[in-house]
Amino acid sequence: MTTFGQRVRAALDEFGPLCVGIDPHTTLLDAWGLDVSAQGAGEFGLRVVDAAAGRAGIVKPQVAFFERFGSAGYAALERVLAAARAAGLIVIADAKRGDIDTTMDGYADAWLGAGSPLEADAVTLSPYLGPDSLHKTLASAVRSGKGAFVLAATSNREGLPVQTAEVVDGAASDRERVAERVARDVGSHNIGLPGSLGSIGVVVGATVDRAAYGLSDIVLAGTPILAPGFGAQGAQAGDLPKLFGYVASGVIASESRSILAVGADRVAARISERAAAYREALGG
Amino acid sequence: MTTFGQRVRAALDEFGPLCVGIDPHTTLLDAWGLDVSAQGAGEFGLRVVDAAAGRAGIVKPQVAFFERFGSAGYAALERVLAAARAAGLIVIADAKRGDIDTTMDGYADAWLGAGSPLEADAVTLSPYLGPDSLHKTLASAVRSGKGAFVLAATSNREGLPVQTAEVVDGAASDRERVAERVARDVGSHNIGLPGSLGSIGVVVGATVDRAAYGLSDIVLAGTPILAPGFGAQGAQAGDLPKLFGYVASGVIASESRSILAVGADRVAARISERAAAYREALGG
Repeated sequence: MTTFGQRVRAALDEFGPLCVGIDPHTTLLDAWGLDVSAQGAGEFGLRVVDAAAGRAGIVKPQVAFFERFGSAGYAALERVLAAARAAGLIVIADAKRGDIDTTMDGYADAWLGAGSPLEADAVTLSPYLGPDSLHKTLASAVRSGKGAFVLAATSNREGLPVQTAEVVDGAASDRERVAERVARDVGSHNIGLPGSLGSIGVVVGATVDRAAYGLSDIVLAGTPILAPGFGAQGAQAGDLPKLFGYVASGVIASESRSILAVGADRVAARISERAAAYREALGG
Repeated sequence: MTTFGQRVRAALDEFGPLCVGIDPHTTLLDAWGLDVSAQGAGEFGLRVVDAAAGRAGIVKPQVAFFERFGSAGYAALERVLAAARAAGLIVIADAKRGDIDTTMDGYADAWLGAGSPLEADAVTLSPYLGPDSLHKTLASAVRSGKGAFVLAATSNREGLPVQTAEVVDGAASDRERVAERVARDVGSHNIGLPGSLGSIGVVVGATVDRAAYGLSDIVLAGTPILAPGFGAQGAQAGDLPKLFGYVASGVIASESRSILAVGADRVAARISERAAAYREALGG
């Protein structure tokens, strides 16, 4: 079996770091001449999948923009997820789910279960209930060739109070930040694979000061990093090596509005252009 | 307009603190003789709604147990939500959503939007991206007669590292815990209503040591408290006054398995029995 980490490594090597967000929000649906409806969101997603196939390796549908249309929106999302996987794209469902026990199993079944109508290759998870509450889901994902990206340091400033807070179960002189604790816990699922990329990743915003969150290179080594904050949110493709340094080769750079806002006719060309910019930044 | 907080107050006064969880997990579907499918989950939910109506004031469907069946599961959940609201029950969708900007708006539209197929009276939210990232959603909920419950101190021990971490933007001698920061931020939406219950609540597990999370009575005053941890998870109805003291009158005590495991035939009687136990504990 090929692990999720191996698939990500191959996609990054072939296409470079770009991950294309699939965010059918109202402004974009209007700009693309599509209905603000489940039908419109589905059509939008399918067009982005068509444009991304062969030009980028990874797509990231934003679940909230489908969930807002209820079950009809989910039916549209199911079509988008299936089309993306059939096109050979790696699909990260951006759902930010997080719960405990059998409830967490429900979310894992939904997004990572083989044959689930919402099956993706990986899902984003939120660790407010403690990174250990995700342990079973993460271990199971690794075993079944799936992946996950756990929120560590998000790209928004409002995240600072929670994500840079000091965990109090260590010595006062050696306290981890919450984001660091999350990343270390996540990293524990990736050991035993020296030099390769693990299947369990973290979300680290491109524009955050990693040091303030305790996210040193050593903490992140071997862990795939899903990095929002590129494009419309401020970071430039050319900054990727400087921003991520030693761990830059494991970064998945997510862009949404900066690609999607060019409109349906130009989106394929825009994806090619952005993918090339990242490859150039990494010297590829 | 009646606020959500006023509706909760009225429900607590009439029926007492009991909130009936609607958790169609596999074990319970089997025990009730229902298919492990969207259809089975929907039927389960409708039966719990029938049993709860007139016996308890509040129900809490667990979204994960419907989401695992994809769009068909969501269609079933839509029927359960509509039936519960039509029966006059206050419906808290236990979704634990949390995101930023327009993405967060998508979740708010889904669960709190008037006329949304998934419309509930309130939704649970997760603050890992910072309590301030939820500000717009919470303010909008208050204005439209809706509510929300933000995770502060959850009932699982794995939550301790994140939820008791010390926020570092204050003086070192006066640092808040993450859960306290969340509760204070939430509480800021409830001011100006002395003596009454606000519309934005927090989740505080019944079995947690509130002091370790900085959740004093003064921090929680006026804020509705959704408290899991009763029933199968260990806390007893009779302990409610002791556990929550000064703020006990704002507690919504959530029970799921301890009620649902008795089977379809006995669930109505069990709800009556549990509701009476809480009322008795509060001396009502």
